[in-house]
Amino acid sequence: MIAAPYLLFLGDAADPLAAKVAQGIRDWRPESAIGQYRMQGCNADLGLPDMGIAEAVAAGARTLVVGVANRGGVISPAWISVLTEAMAQGMDIASGLHNLLRDESELVAAAMAHGRRLHDVRVPPHRYPVADGRRRQGRRCLAVGTDCSVGKMYTALAMEREMRARGMKATFRATGQTGILITGAGVPLDAVVADFMAGSIEWLTPDNDEDHWDLIEGQGSLFHVSYSGVTLALIHGGQPDALVLCHEPTRAHMRGLPGYPLPTLEALRELSLEMARMVNPEVRVVGVSVNTAGLGEAAALALLAGTEARLGLPTVDPFRQGAGRLVDALA
Amino acid sequence: MIAAPYLLFLGDAADPLAAKVAQGIRDWRPESAIGQYRMQGCNADLGLPDMGIAEAVAAGARTLVVGVANRGGVISPAWISVLTEAMAQGMDIASGLHNLLRDESELVAAAMAHGRRLHDVRVPPHRYPVADGRRRQGRRCLAVGTDCSVGKMYTALAMEREMRARGMKATFRATGQTGILITGAGVPLDAVVADFMAGSIEWLTPDNDEDHWDLIEGQGSLFHVSYSGVTLALIHGGQPDALVLCHEPTRAHMRGLPGYPLPTLEALRELSLEMARMVNPEVRVVGVSVNTAGLGEAAALALLAGTEARLGLPTVDPFRQGAGRLVDALA
Repeated sequence: MIAAPYLLFLGDAADPLAAKVAQGIRDWRPESAIGQYRMQGCNADLGLPDMGIAEAVAAGARTLVVGVANRGGVISPAWISVLTEAMAQGMDIASGLHNLLRDESELVAAAMAHGRRLHDVRVPPHRYPVADGRRRQGRRCLAVGTDCSVGKMYTALAMEREMRARGMKATFRATGQTGILITGAGVPLDAVVADFMAGSIEWLTPDNDEDHWDLIEGQGSLFHVSYSGVTLALIHGGQPDALVLCHEPTRAHMRGLPGYPLPTLEALRELSLEMARMVNPEVRVVGVSVNTAGLGEAAALALLAGTEARLGLPTVDPFRQGAGRLVDALA
Repeated sequence: MIAAPYLLFLGDAADPLAAKVAQGIRDWRPESAIGQYRMQGCNADLGLPDMGIAEAVAAGARTLVVGVANRGGVISPAWISVLTEAMAQGMDIASGLHNLLRDESELVAAAMAHGRRLHDVRVPPHRYPVADGRRRQGRRCLAVGTDCSVGKMYTALAMEREMRARGMKATFRATGQTGILITGAGVPLDAVVADFMAGSIEWLTPDNDEDHWDLIEGQGSLFHVSYSGVTLALIHGGQPDALVLCHEPTRAHMRGLPGYPLPTLEALRELSLEMARMVNPEVRVVGVSVNTAGLGEAAALALLAGTEARLGLPTVDPFRQGAGRLVDALA
């Protein structure tokens, strides 16, 4: 668990997109984001108070989160002195970069000297068990996609927010680096060793109150040949009661796989149900979430209505319309 | 690549079953097995010449293979002096035990001192790429199972042997520890990090002659909720042209999963084909391999005939009948 609240480190972000991890924290856990730290040349701005290290500590910040992605995932030398200063003043550091904090000797030395923690969220922090398939109490909803990066995390977070606003018991369960940094905990599933993938998801979504929902962040796609095994482990470890189908309608082919067409939503529905029924015969598909960012408003609404009529399932773009109808369908 | 030939170390094996890795090497790569090393109290015997270290080196042995599984996968203190002596006399050491050779300081020191290699085949020796789904030249056959441990490795090895006897180009591709020790190379798939599973199988089965067959060792089962993700990665990374369905008819439930019934062979056929068609639309199921060790001869033959009639596919127990009919079906 990463200690909140956070100072969001934007470094020398080349553009707003480079700071999208920080943006995700600001959007989904605003109570955790008490300020931003920007260096010379930073071209991102989250609209949070700009703070120095001392100021952030005085405001209660407990962790500096590296919320910026460099080209190549590198920890820039220019950042090191800021991060060591943050530790000297009492903050932990968290990062989802490919290059690890723990591989930087100056950071390791500072963490030791000041008794601080370095959280590399790309590295699984636990040894997970092999999945045992035992039915667990409480309810679980999993977002599955026709492809990678079609809005599965966004959908689950939007549903969690809506459910909490309605007073329902709901917990977003992060399975990727950005999700973990947003919520402060989770399983970096793509970095888990094969034999323990499904077990790590059982561990992440344990027994809970009968009326509690885990909203499990999806990964990959059953139809994406590079990552399909990760997706299947998520379905079998997650034992979902409910599935939400996620789609992005403008893709010419599967992400990174020219020549591989996207499946239809119907094919996704059938295959996901078949797989999920092995662990939960009662599972059902409750709705469809379409990322229509690539379409104008009229085209988006027409596509959503057409999809809804075709599949007979509530179909929304949670960014345009909120996740209310998906949550209605859960209840 | 583990240097052959081998001295098979049986240690103080409690019973023949404890030496089953060594037995596998002796059965499938007899040309690699030039002798056995047995300690006081060893209750296994492969029928190979008993050799001391010096004798084995004189006979050409290049690697001592730990072919015995202790309870708990431990490297017994009683073994250490034998293994260090083997290195002093010029042999490498290979092991598939859970406890690693590289974690034993005396073995590491001896390997350094004598310039020898320690092969821990549970640890992936490479960094594998992410799968790219590109079609590769040559042909591939994958064994898929209704459950774990139903004879997938045995089936692939039996097919390889039969194909080589016929002068066909065939290579068994190991994906598990025993298979790797038998053939001296492979991918320990259950220990590969999630994102690279399918890529490791692409790496293992590269472009080859048009008339060359890879016989890929299967792992787990699409229906085994603990390991299904591993199996799907194997299907999508392997791009099989041919599938062999493997089954063990006496299981009351999925291995280690009380309450989870086994799927039918028909269900295995349909789901495996659906998954494999995503990477290879031409894939077909060529036959069925049933492990009938738990049945008497008459019952076994009746079951095989009944299954063959029901599925319309050549159905054999390769241990009783050889793999000839499966190979016929490939060609």
